[in-house]
Amino acid sequence: MDPTQFETHPSRYRHWRLTFGGDTATLVMAVDGDHPHRPGYELKLNSYDLSVDLELADAVQRLRFEHPQVKVLVITAELDRVFCSGANIYMLGLSSHSFKVNFCKFTNETRLYLEDASANSGLASLCACKGTTAGGGYELALACDETMLVDDGNSAVSFPETPLLAVLPGTGGLTRLVDKRKVRRDRADVFCTTAEGIKGKRAKDWGLVDHIVSRSKWDETVTQRAKTLAARQTVVRGPAVELPALAPKLTDKAITYRYVELAFDPTARTAALLVKGPETPPPADPAALTSAELWSLHAFRELDDALLRLRFDLPDIGVVTVRTSGDPKLVVAHDEALAKATTGFAREVRLLQRRVLKRFDNTARSFYAVADQADSCFAGSLLELALGADRFYMLIDKAGKIGVATSAANHGFMTTSSGLSRLEARFYGEPARAGKLLARGSEGPILSEEAEQLGVATIAADDIDFEDELRIAIEERASLSPDALTGMEQSLRFVGPETLETKIFGRLSAWQNWIFTRANSTGEHGALTLYGQPERPQFQWKRT
Amino acid sequence: MDPTQFETHPSRYRHWRLTFGGDTATLVMAVDGDHPHRPGYELKLNSYDLSVDLELADAVQRLRFEHPQVKVLVITAELDRVFCSGANIYMLGLSSHSFKVNFCKFTNETRLYLEDASANSGLASLCACKGTTAGGGYELALACDETMLVDDGNSAVSFPETPLLAVLPGTGGLTRLVDKRKVRRDRADVFCTTAEGIKGKRAKDWGLVDHIVSRSKWDETVTQRAKTLAARQTVVRGPAVELPALAPKLTDKAITYRYVELAFDPTARTAALLVKGPETPPPADPAALTSAELWSLHAFRELDDALLRLRFDLPDIGVVTVRTSGDPKLVVAHDEALAKATTGFAREVRLLQRRVLKRFDNTARSFYAVADQADSCFAGSLLELALGADRFYMLIDKAGKIGVATSAANHGFMTTSSGLSRLEARFYGEPARAGKLLARGSEGPILSEEAEQLGVATIAADDIDFEDELRIAIEERASLSPDALTGMEQSLRFVGPETLETKIFGRLSAWQNWIFTRANSTGEHGALTLYGQPERPQFQWKRT
Repeated sequence: MDPTQFETHPSRYRHWRLTFGGDTATLVMAVDGDHPHRPGYELKLNSYDLSVDLELADAVQRLRFEHPQVKVLVITAELDRVFCSGANIYMLGLSSHSFKVNFCKFTNETRLYLEDASANSGLASLCACKGTTAGGGYELALACDETMLVDDGNSAVSFPETPLLAVLPGTGGLTRLVDKRKVRRDRADVFCTTAEGIKGKRAKDWGLVDHIVSRSKWDETVTQRAKTLAARQTVVRGPAVELPALAPKLTDKAITYRYVELAFDPTARTAALLVKGPETPPPADPAALTSAELWSLHAFRELDDALLRLRFDLPDIGVVTVRTSGDPKLVVAHDEALAKATTGFAREVRLLQRRVLKRFDNTARSFYAVADQADSCFAGSLLELALGADRFYMLIDKAGKIGVATSAANHGFMTTSSGLSRLEARFYGEPARAGKLLARGSEGPILSEEAEQLGVATIAADDIDFEDELRIAIEERASLSPDALTGMEQSLRFVGPETLETKIFGRLSAWQNWIFTRANSTGEHGALTLYGQPERPQFQWKRT
Repeated sequence: MDPTQFETHPSRYRHWRLTFGGDTATLVMAVDGDHPHRPGYELKLNSYDLSVDLELADAVQRLRFEHPQVKVLVITAELDRVFCSGANIYMLGLSSHSFKVNFCKFTNETRLYLEDASANSGLASLCACKGTTAGGGYELALACDETMLVDDGNSAVSFPETPLLAVLPGTGGLTRLVDKRKVRRDRADVFCTTAEGIKGKRAKDWGLVDHIVSRSKWDETVTQRAKTLAARQTVVRGPAVELPALAPKLTDKAITYRYVELAFDPTARTAALLVKGPETPPPADPAALTSAELWSLHAFRELDDALLRLRFDLPDIGVVTVRTSGDPKLVVAHDEALAKATTGFAREVRLLQRRVLKRFDNTARSFYAVADQADSCFAGSLLELALGADRFYMLIDKAGKIGVATSAANHGFMTTSSGLSRLEARFYGEPARAGKLLARGSEGPILSEEAEQLGVATIAADDIDFEDELRIAIEERASLSPDALTGMEQSLRFVGPETLETKIFGRLSAWQNWIFTRANSTGEHGALTLYGQPERPQFQWKRT
């Protein structure tokens, strides 16, 4: 299989047009039906697939870094009477279970990033739906701050997935309906089983959309609502920094970036992720901190890309060791410089690190962090990788070089999906232990043995036992059922409070995973399989 | 298929022995291997199936009502070196997907009821594990207030499900490990992938058990811990009331109790649930309120039994209409009498109503509450059924007789699994609307039209439209995929905050549902299928 190209650029967009006017950016969805992500289906009626969503994700990311003047993003389309008809059904029908689930996960992350940009980066969003807004199209609208629906007696918002396809709206729609928009649950029930959707005044009365607007007043209202949303923004981004291409080197054994390498062994079904620390201290002049070459930005962008390639292109890899190399002091120095910097750019970099770390938490592979080399540097933002991993193995070395270090990055900013920091989640119910670890960390590096005592290392062992113990742990993990491990890790990783995010990834996605495997949707006579064909689906009626 | 017998009595227990001594009750697990719930497997090594769990549920219920003097329940076993080896694997392998899921749901409910008895009814629990405690056996221990493990160099607690069977611990174990007992997530990861489990000091250090005790000190320590737990109880139950058999009449068309009837039409895949209100006012003398014949107790026990029969014995029924009949004033009078009564018995009845209503929320069928008869009585505790249903249809009758009424039962005591009341969940994010409805309710009945305006009715229609609208809604619902509906309803019903309970039913169970359908567990070469056979499972390695 050809590797997936996750990087793109507005100059290469096939499916969206990004334009600017003052503090407003407009993304026009204009899906090129002839250029799907994979051959075999046509992207009709502004339906989308992974390629379309990769461009959307790219646009939102670039707006944050490259266009700090933009305070509101208007998402719209210019097809006659159609805003977006959702994820392409034929694409879903042709996809493997693993691809379907990872596609849904990525589109969920993209929509959460839209919400994150609004909540934290002064970038609001307005979904201007001048036509039919179905399925994933409406889920995109739900992720925006405001949704406008044209009131033309015809255009509706809808979730036809359950009645037409025997699956769920898979991109957070159910959760956003009742938890975010607070649509009454019995009305949500009616809405989600009404294939043709709900339009006009009822859509507004039920809270499904914020505004219904006639065709004649459409453009004027879009401008006015965008202006209102822009005026509300108080967070300032910038200075602008262009995001260069990462352009990793790909071979059949590894994906190699400047700071990140993902080497894989398909036979053993294992991979080795290595993240290198910065080579130099951060610039002393805070103004010079504004650069796309900054380690904190570049390395985490690389890590993000590597995680996506792991998810989509290396589905058979079950266990990933995570190592770091470099000078822990330099990692800490970069973290501290960012935390102290007052620019919007610095905040954006930290927010990006936070999103990448959440992507790591949400990647359905077993991660074993390993500190077994003298130049290991699980410090600050890189320590978060060890805390997010399922286990953390540390070698007790005679030279006393291997340890961990804390920085400003461990003090609460890098929240997980649950809203807890990784230290808070690790010591759930015992917040004093997180405080103790941070206090100890402020005094200097914590060597392996002490790290185990303080609860950071899962296992610390000396060189007599270490190598065998780790090797056996990896082999054992790689031998277990990937399905059971996914469910187990999902249950253990997200301890504590639940949020919209954890509900989407933990509850909604779990039900969708199940439903995708059921004959009623994807079997020979299932509704998803038969979509668009004259044959009616045949259901097995047993309820579970 | 023979109907399942959900009712039992200590005099008929085959698998447990219930004994009493002062304020301590002891349940000895002594599973009779030759009497499984269905033929085809043997219950070796104190493994359990539905029959075993039905007796456990019965015992906990009877302790609450019939034995108010008991303040602590000791759960133990007397097999040599084995406490409990968990759910019987051969039983799972032989069961349909639907049965497996409903079995897990019921066992989950039973364990949550143990926790409920401790939290609200002054009945603590101590799990005294004098031997191997595996899988569901350890999940039972996790549901108790304290767990003791014998320290004999051999006995361990374990979750071998993932490594041995390629499924999850399905009875809340993963959630209870990290969320209830706050076992560190990386240690939980090690524990859940170590088939042989963890014993002795490490089990105690990791928080997997509360006490490790030698054989020589075992009996003395059990007595002492039970005494300590009993001494902590402040909630007083009683007076004692014996729970009589419900003994419903079963035909091939209906299950009929004194107050409850469940009529079903397998061809249409629909059922009609009718709950009748009380025939007489509650006794004026509060002392006389203490009776098993009290409507509030008897009717809700019947409803509970009917829901279990619906789940297990009528798997093809997709849509259930819920009607009530009787005098709403009498329902309100019973609710108010209970809420005012100061006896432990009255509290127990209300707690039972709350549990039954949660069982209703958690039943994977589409419920449409319907008020279309002049004697409809959706009042107070019965109004909760309408609020818990997916939709509520109300007829606007010319005589102005059909309406709803509120009582003390709607003011917050009858919490759902999320901790919100059904009114709070209905008006999630708009608490003032719940308050407004309750204020209006205190003035008298609310007729259909007003009930719709206040947000209680989903749809109120007059007799020109009502019948057709309801008929079409039922037919449409019955035509949809049961799997997609289950996932949709699970996502819409549990709005708002998440708790241990909702995590277990929404997240853990959803992952388990998915895993149960995967070839790696239940396929021809799956680990669950091949358990106990020489052939090694073959896995599909793709991660999702």
